Amino acid sequence: MTLQDARTPENGQGAEAQAATEQIGWHKGYISGSRPDLQVPVRRVHLTNGEHVTLYDTSGPYTDPNIETDVRRGLAPLRENWIIARGDTEEYAGRPMRPEDDGLKHTSPRGGLKNLDAVFPGRPRQPRRGRDGAVTQLAYAQRGEITAEMEYVAVRENCSPEFVRDEIAAGRAVLPANVNHPEIEPMIIGKNFLVKVNANIGNSAVTSSIEEEVEKMTWATRWGADTVMDLSTGRNIHTTREWVLRNSPVPIGTVPLYQALEKVDGKAEELTWEIYKDTVIEQAEQGVDYMTVHAGVLLRYVPLTARRKTGIVSRGGSIMAAWCLAHHKESFLYENFEELCDILASYDVTFSLGDGLRPGSIADANDEAQFAELKTLGELNTIAKAHGVQTMIEGPGHVPMHKIKENIDLQQEICEEAPFYTLGPLTTDIAPAYDHITSGIGAAMIAWWGTAMLCYVTPKEHLGLPDRDDVKTGVITYKIAAHAADLAKGHPGAQEWDDALSDARFEFRWEDQFNLALDPDTARAFHDETLPAEPAKTAHFCSMCGPKFCSMKISQDIRREHGGDLSVDPEAGMAEKSKEFAAAGNRVYLPIAD
Amino acid sequence: MTLQDARTPENGQGAEAQAATEQIGWHKGYISGSRPDLQVPVRRVHLTNGEHVTLYDTSGPYTDPNIETDVRRGLAPLRENWIIARGDTEEYAGRPMRPEDDGLKHTSPRGGLKNLDAVFPGRPRQPRRGRDGAVTQLAYAQRGEITAEMEYVAVRENCSPEFVRDEIAAGRAVLPANVNHPEIEPMIIGKNFLVKVNANIGNSAVTSSIEEEVEKMTWATRWGADTVMDLSTGRNIHTTREWVLRNSPVPIGTVPLYQALEKVDGKAEELTWEIYKDTVIEQAEQGVDYMTVHAGVLLRYVPLTARRKTGIVSRGGSIMAAWCLAHHKESFLYENFEELCDILASYDVTFSLGDGLRPGSIADANDEAQFAELKTLGELNTIAKAHGVQTMIEGPGHVPMHKIKENIDLQQEICEEAPFYTLGPLTTDIAPAYDHITSGIGAAMIAWWGTAMLCYVTPKEHLGLPDRDDVKTGVITYKIAAHAADLAKGHPGAQEWDDALSDARFEFRWEDQFNLALDPDTARAFHDETLPAEPAKTAHFCSMCGPKFCSMKISQDIRREHGGDLSVDPEAGMAEKSKEFAAAGNRVYLPIAD
Repeated sequence: MTLQDARTPENGQGAEAQAATEQIGWHKGYISGSRPDLQVPVRRVHLTNGEHVTLYDTSGPYTDPNIETDVRRGLAPLRENWIIARGDTEEYAGRPMRPEDDGLKHTSPRGGLKNLDAVFPGRPRQPRRGRDGAVTQLAYAQRGEITAEMEYVAVRENCSPEFVRDEIAAGRAVLPANVNHPEIEPMIIGKNFLVKVNANIGNSAVTSSIEEEVEKMTWATRWGADTVMDLSTGRNIHTTREWVLRNSPVPIGTVPLYQALEKVDGKAEELTWEIYKDTVIEQAEQGVDYMTVHAGVLLRYVPLTARRKTGIVSRGGSIMAAWCLAHHKESFLYENFEELCDILASYDVTFSLGDGLRPGSIADANDEAQFAELKTLGELNTIAKAHGVQTMIEGPGHVPMHKIKENIDLQQEICEEAPFYTLGPLTTDIAPAYDHITSGIGAAMIAWWGTAMLCYVTPKEHLGLPDRDDVKTGVITYKIAAHAADLAKGHPGAQEWDDALSDARFEFRWEDQFNLALDPDTARAFHDETLPAEPAKTAHFCSMCGPKFCSMKISQDIRREHGGDLSVDPEAGMAEKSKEFAAAGNRVYLPIAD
Repeated sequence: MTLQDARTPENGQGAEAQAATEQIGWHKGYISGSRPDLQVPVRRVHLTNGEHVTLYDTSGPYTDPNIETDVRRGLAPLRENWIIARGDTEEYAGRPMRPEDDGLKHTSPRGGLKNLDAVFPGRPRQPRRGRDGAVTQLAYAQRGEITAEMEYVAVRENCSPEFVRDEIAAGRAVLPANVNHPEIEPMIIGKNFLVKVNANIGNSAVTSSIEEEVEKMTWATRWGADTVMDLSTGRNIHTTREWVLRNSPVPIGTVPLYQALEKVDGKAEELTWEIYKDTVIEQAEQGVDYMTVHAGVLLRYVPLTARRKTGIVSRGGSIMAAWCLAHHKESFLYENFEELCDILASYDVTFSLGDGLRPGSIADANDEAQFAELKTLGELNTIAKAHGVQTMIEGPGHVPMHKIKENIDLQQEICEEAPFYTLGPLTTDIAPAYDHITSGIGAAMIAWWGTAMLCYVTPKEHLGLPDRDDVKTGVITYKIAAHAADLAKGHPGAQEWDDALSDARFEFRWEDQFNLALDPDTARAFHDETLPAEPAKTAHFCSMCGPKFCSMKISQDIRREHGGDLSVDPEAGMAEKSKEFAAAGNRVYLPIAD
């Protein structure tokens, strides 16, 4: 359920009684599916007028005071029984962890990790994989099956499980859910569902720690990130990812190439298919839900970037370009793509086919290199689907507004409506430190036109690694873009959130405005800067106009005078109403005490 | 000149020598027109590679170290000689200032202003007005004359003075320039020029002081505001405005109705045409360049708002609606519109025909009330033009993305392409505290489609009065929207700014990136948070990837290998280049010291 049935009491036993005992504000709630272990979390906002609004919730068990969480133990494996019950997977010994998985020299002792906490201390587990063939949501959907995950998503999106299944079966949507990541709350990415937002985290060689990354992940989902990509480079990649996965209620994406490159000490030409494949299996066993694979960067496309203003700006793209150049061979990702499909199918890892040649500047948008690669991604999408692998397609980048629509239209045509997953796009290059905004503009537009998931950009883009505040700003900006797109697409129920907030605004229910806001804390803080006193939160005015005159109040007078009376001839009615208005004292403003 | 001839030395005597002696960074510069007193300010960015970029500059004399400014004296009257030389205006005694002009009781002594500074201490002046008929830029343009102001604007916009004249004559552009505001640096608002940004300032009954408002004005123009509206209410309106006008290098707009309402103690029904007219003359004599007039709120439209979710949210609109209701009479602004035109024409005050019935929520967008008023604004636009009064049309408000284009298309059709001046629009209601972003999205889109000026929205919208930081955030956000639109419209030269910054980014010229940024201070600060040391500003990597691997570096390798060589068969060339690449050590990353 999104907002379609918002503002009415829940059906079901005890729901009304429960609502009555809850205080004003917002609280974690659950909507039950057809089985007791299918409880879909929602954010329930209780209004001062007795109504309530139910919102999509990505924050996981961390916002449920009735659930004790411990980052050292990890989250409960919500989906484990569903996966086991399907009977098509098996546990196995798995690939042993090696020092180089954490970026340590092959010969070094494991002394690089002095801090015990750096090794994830949770319950021991063996990896799981498909016993025979694809164990993917796509394969189930193609066979007509509705999984528990699909039903969970249907409840979340307020649609039928059959619709979810059909969208997945058609390749128009993906439900990223590695069998080794049972902790996630299933979600879906597709243009006929709510627009989703991804937040990137990840340490680099220069800065950041494991603890910070886990904290960034929970913080990002707290504000609405639907998925998180761990883009760590440098040391402790494997261990950081383990901590993130075991504590994440949302799907986790990675770029395996980054870790593979660490294993060859950053020398792209030393990369091999074997090292890459081993890294993919390592990550699949840990539970990574989707992987960016830059298999569309072909040898013959590399020279197309030579005269670009900013060349290749994708790390993955430039690594593969360097490899192709060094060996004068076709990309090992492209050459081994079908084998890669089989690996991903056996864990239900979703492809995110990377746009390694995306434009890094306004000047380079929509050029030959970019669209040549897109065409190849279309071919790879068809192959992946044939192998039962869920697939989405990554998109740009830096694109001026008038060139954005061509991107989504071409992608949808070439990739058979596979979900598009774009980075912004940034609509100008001139505002470093504000690229959440330059890109939020492009993100809203491309999502309106059909992009299914938006990869956030933070204020630190191009300048440094995002800190906690940057992560929040990036997520909030992109939730705005996503919701603006949901509205423009006419997504069922999307506008009820806006309507509830606007009703609260018109009726001066300040506390309701704050609680309904995308960021209640900041909205309340901004209001309190000017009018901090508690009575101001019930005042029938705000600091913009002050108590002496208020346009909202006049509108309320007009509504009182004319609201129910529009069938009457306006002119005739007006004369009478004018007298009434005068008799009532022509009150166009409120005394402070009112 | 905007950016068209950027990055080449200025023509003219000594320009190269001057550039050579200037240090790296950005500096105030001037471009000469055809006469010595026509010096158009620019922001000149000197790059570390010896090139320079010239940018549009709104910051006035405050950023010129060679000009001494004193807010107690005001700015030099740049246009005074031009106005006098035209010989069509005269000085006169003017309307005496009255206590009620500053919101004091008619009978009160002037003791309300204890602080001497509250009275503007600059040079005494008499107001000026047209001796006979319109003294407007529109009237001159219609007669085929090119004024000094038009030439100034042509230099600023890098087009011919004839083009400026023709756009003004056609009513497609306005050049707001009250004869009593000689301090301004002329600028133009029209869809065939750079998109402009307005910043609102103004105290209210609840908070703020004169000093703060003057400071906000200079601060807003420092970051790029093209005009400033003083929306003060409460006390000291007249005096605040005097301080703002005398110190403003940009056109100042107001809503005279706000002050008129103060004069009748906030009782809308006590407003009269005489009080309003007197207020307009008071403000025109002070030098207000454009005035928002809500003359389109007609009696018969008021009931159309009764069933809206958020009624009338425009203060001006609700004041006029209340007046119409109380008297059951047609709006005195509408009834006396032609007389108002004659007044504005004699000072060259530009109309900003207000959209008093603009939607205040997503639910109310593009409704009958809004478009009924727009039609009336179209009629008034025609009347104003016939009286020689420059006119722009205000627009919404809160509009979801899919309903934005209809707004600009209808406005352009109904109002004969008169400049559209919109508030955002906000594309969703759910993000109080982030409405600079919800509206920046809509602003960029509607500007792309033809809106000439964007009224900024700050993070405090709906919550409180903006402080200094909010003003900056609002202006920067809207400069992004405006520039993104300039790019999408293909405005000549707009992309050169992006290109210069992207070149600097690709070549790791960090200082150049900062100096070219819309907000150099914040860009530099964000970079320094992660890599504070001075050498990092010349480092060939950034904190995202770290020194070990850098995609930009790989791209540079590719360019070096293939940049000049695209005529060669790529496949054949690649084999050879591959060998060269290997011979050069397959270097795909840089040692830190490199």
